[in-house]
Amino acid sequence: MPSFTIAEIAAALGGEAVGDAALTVSGAAPPGTAGPDHLAVALSPAFAKELGRARAALLWPGADWRGLRLKAAILAPAGRLTLAHLTAALAPDDAFAPGIHATALIDPSAEIGSDVSVGPFAVIGPGARIGAGSRIGAHASLGAGVTLGQGARIHTGARFQPRVSAGARLIVQPGAVIGADGFSFQTETLSNPERAKASGGAERLTPPDSEDWVKTESLGSVILGDDVEIGANSTVDAGTLKPTSIGDGTKLDNLVHVGHNCEVGRHCLLCGQTGIAGSVTIGDRVVLGGQTGVGDHHRIGDDVVTGAGTMILANVPSGSVLLGYPSQRMDRAIASYKTLRRLTRDAAAPRVSNSDASD
Amino acid sequence: MPSFTIAEIAAALGGEAVGDAALTVSGAAPPGTAGPDHLAVALSPAFAKELGRARAALLWPGADWRGLRLKAAILAPAGRLTLAHLTAALAPDDAFAPGIHATALIDPSAEIGSDVSVGPFAVIGPGARIGAGSRIGAHASLGAGVTLGQGARIHTGARFQPRVSAGARLIVQPGAVIGADGFSFQTETLSNPERAKASGGAERLTPPDSEDWVKTESLGSVILGDDVEIGANSTVDAGTLKPTSIGDGTKLDNLVHVGHNCEVGRHCLLCGQTGIAGSVTIGDRVVLGGQTGVGDHHRIGDDVVTGAGTMILANVPSGSVLLGYPSQRMDRAIASYKTLRRLTRDAAAPRVSNSDASD
Amino acid sequence: MPSFTIAEIAAALGGEAVGDAALTVSGAAPPGTAGPDHLAVALSPAFAKELGRARAALLWPGADWRGLRLKAAILAPAGRLTLAHLTAALAPDDAFAPGIHATALIDPSAEIGSDVSVGPFAVIGPGARIGAGSRIGAHASLGAGVTLGQGARIHTGARFQPRVSAGARLIVQPGAVIGADGFSFQTETLSNPERAKASGGAERLTPPDSEDWVKTESLGSVILGDDVEIGANSTVDAGTLKPTSIGDGTKLDNLVHVGHNCEVGRHCLLCGQTGIAGSVTIGDRVVLGGQTGVGDHHRIGDDVVTGAGTMILANVPSGSVLLGYPSQRMDRAIASYKTLRRLTRDAAAPRVSNSDASD
Repeated sequence: MPSFTIAEIAAALGGEAVGDAALTVSGAAPPGTAGPDHLAVALSPAFAKELGRARAALLWPGADWRGLRLKAAILAPAGRLTLAHLTAALAPDDAFAPGIHATALIDPSAEIGSDVSVGPFAVIGPGARIGAGSRIGAHASLGAGVTLGQGARIHTGARFQPRVSAGARLIVQPGAVIGADGFSFQTETLSNPERAKASGGAERLTPPDSEDWVKTESLGSVILGDDVEIGANSTVDAGTLKPTSIGDGTKLDNLVHVGHNCEVGRHCLLCGQTGIAGSVTIGDRVVLGGQTGVGDHHRIGDDVVTGAGTMILANVPSGSVLLGYPSQRMDRAIASYKTLRRLTRDAAAPRVSNSDASD
Repeated sequence: MPSFTIAEIAAALGGEAVGDAALTVSGAAPPGTAGPDHLAVALSPAFAKELGRARAALLWPGADWRGLRLKAAILAPAGRLTLAHLTAALAPDDAFAPGIHATALIDPSAEIGSDVSVGPFAVIGPGARIGAGSRIGAHASLGAGVTLGQGARIHTGARFQPRVSAGARLIVQPGAVIGADGFSFQTETLSNPERAKASGGAERLTPPDSEDWVKTESLGSVILGDDVEIGANSTVDAGTLKPTSIGDGTKLDNLVHVGHNCEVGRHCLLCGQTGIAGSVTIGDRVVLGGQTGVGDHHRIGDDVVTGAGTMILANVPSGSVLLGYPSQRMDRAIASYKTLRRLTRDAAAPRVSNSDASD
Repeated sequence: MPSFTIAEIAAALGGEAVGDAALTVSGAAPPGTAGPDHLAVALSPAFAKELGRARAALLWPGADWRGLRLKAAILAPAGRLTLAHLTAALAPDDAFAPGIHATALIDPSAEIGSDVSVGPFAVIGPGARIGAGSRIGAHASLGAGVTLGQGARIHTGARFQPRVSAGARLIVQPGAVIGADGFSFQTETLSNPERAKASGGAERLTPPDSEDWVKTESLGSVILGDDVEIGANSTVDAGTLKPTSIGDGTKLDNLVHVGHNCEVGRHCLLCGQTGIAGSVTIGDRVVLGGQTGVGDHHRIGDDVVTGAGTMILANVPSGSVLLGYPSQRMDRAIASYKTLRRLTRDAAAPRVSNSDASD
């Protein structure tokens, strides 16, 4: 159990410690579930009604902590980042054991920085370079020539195919796969998708002349910027000739797919199960809601936001806010769904003719 | 090859063994593909026409097994659970080798119950507790303080981050990740999604004042009830302060995502690729069809059912049956799709004026 | 760094080497990013404007390579397969180390063909058979009785549950799971999805009589044809009594789910995050766009193509080209989306009465 004094936490948050600042807690909890070892989090009076058995709480400036029967409190403004800073201060950091485990296999040609930990059964291939202060979890595999900047946190079972490179402070959640082969196959004659596109779908397809799919190999690997995070079991495929790239500060949620040759910009969020087909370009500060899809080769500008499940099948200008299948401007999409519901109700209503109405 | 007598299987099903009850089979098969070592499954006369080379079959009560040229048969009513019970009786149980493999790494402080097997290269961290009769597959990793009840079946490469706890009889398919970090990031000033929400999408977004995403750490881990099953490569993220929770008897299919702080009730089914964003509450006996999405912070009542691909972007009352993007009551969704098809056909049809029609 | 002469590459492509055919390159690159060790790829004059620092390029027949200041070039017709063949010629093949690693665990009863490599910490179970020339990556697990044909390439952390069998030249990307349990559960009395279907959603569901889900075990495993590829973190579930099957030449992209009892035909492409529910039959040469969904028990003919995000909730005749939620013929789906946008605009426009208009 980790243990923190109220004074330590207050310092980390830039808040004021009041009461017994030497009191220790093992973590934080929402008001309703806080126990005696928790710092209850109640940043406004509405949450302070059920502080449970907590002896200490994070409260708003000026709160009457004595009246709440607390032994200690931290008074902090409810800033947008207060909870983030609190969790950072309290994070137990028990995901990685220190040191290089005896069973880890590190190729003699790999360069391992200072203060790097490597978990049991991890494999680090020839020519790999791991930056100082990095943590590599159990069962992770880093292929030949993989390069990670300083301070990486690579969780259990994450997979790096050869030659993936990343900047500083990369976080990869368990099971993510970086640098697998792109999904790129060609046929000798026109394929069914090409023929479907040509006809627009108005004609039934008959069997094509060639049916064998010939694989295009992926030579380009993946390049990740600084401060990138990749979610659990997400996948970022290698590019064909040049690397698939993800810019500084961009975060991928779980089960996200980024196809080969994509260029994703800086400070983007790709929420859970979003899928980006091959050769898509995405600008900076783009936030794609969960289960968003983007068709191949499209270009998405900067500062684009999509609602959950949006399907993008065209280029998107910077600043667009989109929703729907297929995507529209969000307000128009909502209007269209309302229109359809109204037209459906009208169609179901009993018809009233003018003469009936005048009776 | 496992081997079962007709008498044994009949006893397991509560059926009647007829003919040579000592005859052995190695498994069951659909009628068309059954070989001489299979129990053909033909629970109604329609399926009894092609028993192939089977010498034994599972038939309906009163079936003329001699006329079907069988050496033995089991006569059982076609109950809703008959096939489930049959498969349970015949399950080969070859997914786990017995005993604790010499290469498994179990921290000395972990408590391992009686009759637990642990596969090669599995890692069990400090303070973990594994209930009696559990099976831990090859390459599984269980972090510090993970607690599993009795009879768990943890398949190859499943990942438990620190402090995940589960009740009895947990099943985790290969590659699932329990307790990874939630996807929670804040900006110092209003972020693009917040600004998009405020404007409803009617205004183009310009670059925001701050673009760095500050991570909120996940301190709350995950708590799973009794009889939970998690599908292959699915992910259940850790909560921020309190645990993400999944209730007794709830089953997740493959590639399902459950976000941080979610509370999923009892006896739910979350079908393939369903995605639940953060802080969602789901009641009991809810069944979400494949690729269903639920936006963050929504509340879903008890006994809710969704069709495949339904996108839930609002709270849902108990008992609702939903379909569509965005979700509607299923009958209304179907009516709206029909309305749109009719209006589209009408729009495409050549226009006929009154005067034309009267000609 | 691998190294190839211009002559070698030209021979592999069936192209013409001109200039210094002994010049070596370490790989290929798009024109804009090519360095002195790259073969710049510029198969038409439009791409030849920015050959960067490349000393050699892949050009169209008759190109003036000297005028482009190159030392060497390969002249090749821009065939549909040229890029595929080029990447095959240049693929570095650094994903697998040769030989059987000392830490690999191979059951004594497994049969390993000639020239097979097995990576560190891989586990191969009893009775498994691995075809000649196969490559098994680090951390892969192959359960009891798994059978792979010759030339398999099984990347890191791929999971094969017992008795999966595959033909020749199988490729499995990292983290894929073949043969996990199907998602099949029954209740003793009518379940919520059954009751929802019966009512069409018009009635609210009340709690059902039985809520426990009884698992149907998966005895049937999976059978894969020749030349199959399974993407990173994709899942193919085991069948109940007979195997789930995937035909020759079919390729699955990343994070694709194929449910239990499915029969997928030959030469299909299932693009990223596509999800196929249980007991679906799919014909040959079917191409499903990314995030396509198929509801359970449906039958899809040959030569069907879907756009991204299509949701199939009915049987589909051969040759169909589909789009939309729920799926329609692609041209009709596009027409319906246009119709809805027009109707929505009309509804928003200020209403003009006849008398106003005549003013």
